[in-house]
Amino acid sequence: MKHLISTENLGPTEIKHLLDKAALIKSSRTVGGLEGKNLGMLFFDPSLRTQTSFSVGMKQLGGSVTVLSVGQGVWDLEVEDNVIMDGDKAEHVREAAPVLSRYFDALAVRAFPLGRSWEKDSQDPVLNSFARHATVPVINLESALWHPCQALGDALTWLELGLKKGSPLALTWAYHPKALPLAVPRSVILMGVQQGLDVTVVRPPEFSLDEGLMHYAKKVASATGGNIRESAKRDAISSSQVVYAKSWGSLAAYGDPQAEQKIRQKYANWQVTQELMGLTDQATFMHCLPVRRNVVVSDEVLNSPASKVVDQAENRLHVQKALLLDLLGHGEKDR
Amino acid sequence: MKHLISTENLGPTEIKHLLDKAALIKSSRTVGGLEGKNLGMLFFDPSLRTQTSFSVGMKQLGGSVTVLSVGQGVWDLEVEDNVIMDGDKAEHVREAAPVLSRYFDALAVRAFPLGRSWEKDSQDPVLNSFARHATVPVINLESALWHPCQALGDALTWLELGLKKGSPLALTWAYHPKALPLAVPRSVILMGVQQGLDVTVVRPPEFSLDEGLMHYAKKVASATGGNIRESAKRDAISSSQVVYAKSWGSLAAYGDPQAEQKIRQKYANWQVTQELMGLTDQATFMHCLPVRRNVVVSDEVLNSPASKVVDQAENRLHVQKALLLDLLGHGEKDR
Amino acid sequence: MKHLISTENLGPTEIKHLLDKAALIKSSRTVGGLEGKNLGMLFFDPSLRTQTSFSVGMKQLGGSVTVLSVGQGVWDLEVEDNVIMDGDKAEHVREAAPVLSRYFDALAVRAFPLGRSWEKDSQDPVLNSFARHATVPVINLESALWHPCQALGDALTWLELGLKKGSPLALTWAYHPKALPLAVPRSVILMGVQQGLDVTVVRPPEFSLDEGLMHYAKKVASATGGNIRESAKRDAISSSQVVYAKSWGSLAAYGDPQAEQKIRQKYANWQVTQELMGLTDQATFMHCLPVRRNVVVSDEVLNSPASKVVDQAENRLHVQKALLLDLLGHGEKDR
Repeated sequence: MKHLISTENLGPTEIKHLLDKAALIKSSRTVGGLEGKNLGMLFFDPSLRTQTSFSVGMKQLGGSVTVLSVGQGVWDLEVEDNVIMDGDKAEHVREAAPVLSRYFDALAVRAFPLGRSWEKDSQDPVLNSFARHATVPVINLESALWHPCQALGDALTWLELGLKKGSPLALTWAYHPKALPLAVPRSVILMGVQQGLDVTVVRPPEFSLDEGLMHYAKKVASATGGNIRESAKRDAISSSQVVYAKSWGSLAAYGDPQAEQKIRQKYANWQVTQELMGLTDQATFMHCLPVRRNVVVSDEVLNSPASKVVDQAENRLHVQKALLLDLLGHGEKDR
Repeated sequence: MKHLISTENLGPTEIKHLLDKAALIKSSRTVGGLEGKNLGMLFFDPSLRTQTSFSVGMKQLGGSVTVLSVGQGVWDLEVEDNVIMDGDKAEHVREAAPVLSRYFDALAVRAFPLGRSWEKDSQDPVLNSFARHATVPVINLESALWHPCQALGDALTWLELGLKKGSPLALTWAYHPKALPLAVPRSVILMGVQQGLDVTVVRPPEFSLDEGLMHYAKKVASATGGNIRESAKRDAISSSQVVYAKSWGSLAAYGDPQAEQKIRQKYANWQVTQELMGLTDQATFMHCLPVRRNVVVSDEVLNSPASKVVDQAENRLHVQKALLLDLLGHGEKDR
Repeated sequence: MKHLISTENLGPTEIKHLLDKAALIKSSRTVGGLEGKNLGMLFFDPSLRTQTSFSVGMKQLGGSVTVLSVGQGVWDLEVEDNVIMDGDKAEHVREAAPVLSRYFDALAVRAFPLGRSWEKDSQDPVLNSFARHATVPVINLESALWHPCQALGDALTWLELGLKKGSPLALTWAYHPKALPLAVPRSVILMGVQQGLDVTVVRPPEFSLDEGLMHYAKKVASATGGNIRESAKRDAISSSQVVYAKSWGSLAAYGDPQAEQKIRQKYANWQVTQELMGLTDQATFMHCLPVRRNVVVSDEVLNSPASKVVDQAENRLHVQKALLLDLLGHGEKDR
């Protein structure tokens, strides 16, 4: 593993190794191992959990982080090739990535999609530009397509909840006033099938995920013994052990906010309520956070013991420490 | 002491202990003691001294800080309960506080008042929301009501200046183009009487502090042997050993900028000048900073040896190191 | 050396010492030496390399940094004396600099020129205000006049390229949509002659640098055996071993954007292309970064092995570590 762009980059053995290591780190409160190592974190978009858990994780391991906010204290960066740079962008990733590679031991990059063209966003231009031009490992902190650290944290939570091959998990779309990126639902689906879960994606018909992802997820599921299906019926969650809620934008209306609003408004009642959760046999509620209370999910559900959103967020710390030790640890580069 | 919201939370023994410890830290240049500890600092409002002195203090003690600027790199947070979160705020403190508690050993929060309604601001909603939902100690870095770290730093400065029970200190209102928050004057008054000083609050009639505070200060003063009185006459500072200047907004015009301006303009001459200081017997000048030169206080006073504003700011570092060692130190949690 | 404002402050022995030390740090990957030391970095303007290389450098040496962005999380600072501070600026450097000196072991300040009046900018008011009021060493991270850390990094690169006394270097002006500051060209010229290089400044007639700098550079050159001349002909680069490209604003139109644009547009073809580089005998291309591709320099040149811009940027790290060890190192203050 040179870069971590997606859990696509990880085979079953690597995922198991990372999750075992994360569980050990969590139980033994592992510290040290990355003395003198520096992680550079570039945020093109805001972050609470990601920035914080990586910062604390690196420091607990004896290393350090430097956080750079592009457009806020750092000039905006160009990522496209063959461009005449006479606009707002003062520097190209072709310089920024190799220069930062001389300073840091690894680079971590968050760059959400621009949301205008799925064709363009699905190239993940910012992240891939860093991956191409950096000479140190690049960690994806959420791009247009993927959020692998979230998926790893969630997988650890599933293990803690006792999920195993064949366990049923529902990923349900929920209403949100804005069209949110697709990285989290795509990553949760992929990790679900990578872990051999029986995944049901519950969403209105207009909120199907891209065929490329669904096709790939089916292929992975058939190798791991998992399963993946879609449903437009909300009660399709009923047999699930975990109800994972997440809102995302419609690919049918990508880049067209008016069309998106029109579609979206029809499903303003897709909130995860106690009533909906009541259809399951005491399923666990999960969400990657941040979550809008009483829009995506009701207070009642979030405040109930069924909600594991805080544990889920904590697990980000542990899986990322495992990842960092693997990527940067002294004498551990032989994986 | 679980949280430090106000010096109200500290008894006389605790205050003495902290100040003794701070003095020792200052003289012995104490380092170490918080290895592996991480302090999360959330700023809803800007900061120079607070951010810096906590950062340097934690690092000198072997720990580290992560600074999060809400609304700048971190999404804005909802603090009210039972809200339908369909506006600008992407996350609720009910999630943010417990999640950050999983990452950090303590949380420090700065949240100024919104300045629209005293009734609402005097509930200190942001800070109290964190205090309620965090599972680690919360340190107040200045809220609508209190600035306990400033008060502790000032108390150390008073000791260094030789003030003791019964020593006269004047807190004088000064002109400033804007209505500033009340946390500093309230905290200085409280710490003044907690230390048994003879406190005179000098302010125009329209700038009385809230009755709740004055009533509480009188109660504390009667227990410690201190005293608290108010005066609208500027020369009421004349017998003081310390003249502590600070501007604040009028409770009479709270949330009404036009009314506030109208009242305030009448007192544009309430600047601390050499002439005013000349009424005292070589009193020391104090101010919590930042201070507007030639508005709140003249260049002449600030540049004179009577000004201790830089020492005052330095003492923030020492009292905060004492506080952090008490809150987070290994084997010192028995207080 | 108390402050590092310009390489003017460094004699030949000091420069040689710093570059030797930097080369050793680079080859031996020196770590440690600044345990417990804290550098405060104040940015009035954005930064990628400077912020990052100082942060990583301090951490590799066992110390730490605190980054303060003025106007973003830190209130704006007044630098002029005798001002009535009733405007936007909440604090004066006369307080901020001594207070920060109580917290930090050194202060590093970046403050670009305001670009309205050369007479005023050439006083370097922000940096000099810090230098005057700080009680710890102040390091210039690029001011209106100087960028000494860039010059030191460049000098190390020149040594690595085999340049020695008498080696020919061309500093060529290049087109850029905006009038950029003069600190880098001025600092490169000064360091060029301090190192005894044979420097040719190639620029359109309207882009002469200030007479004060050119006069001083001639004086230094005559002492070191270097040389400095100017030319308005682009092919004056032909005999150079290094072509150092940089854009800057015209002193003739300083503070007058319309006049500047009018002059500047005439030279929109002053891009460093492969054709231009072809006039030299395989000269090395240098630029301080950030650089606008296909405006200042073509993709072809930047992507060619002749470009050393990434090495140049890396060398910032090494010279700054040498500088920090000299300024702050334990038992090394005897220089």
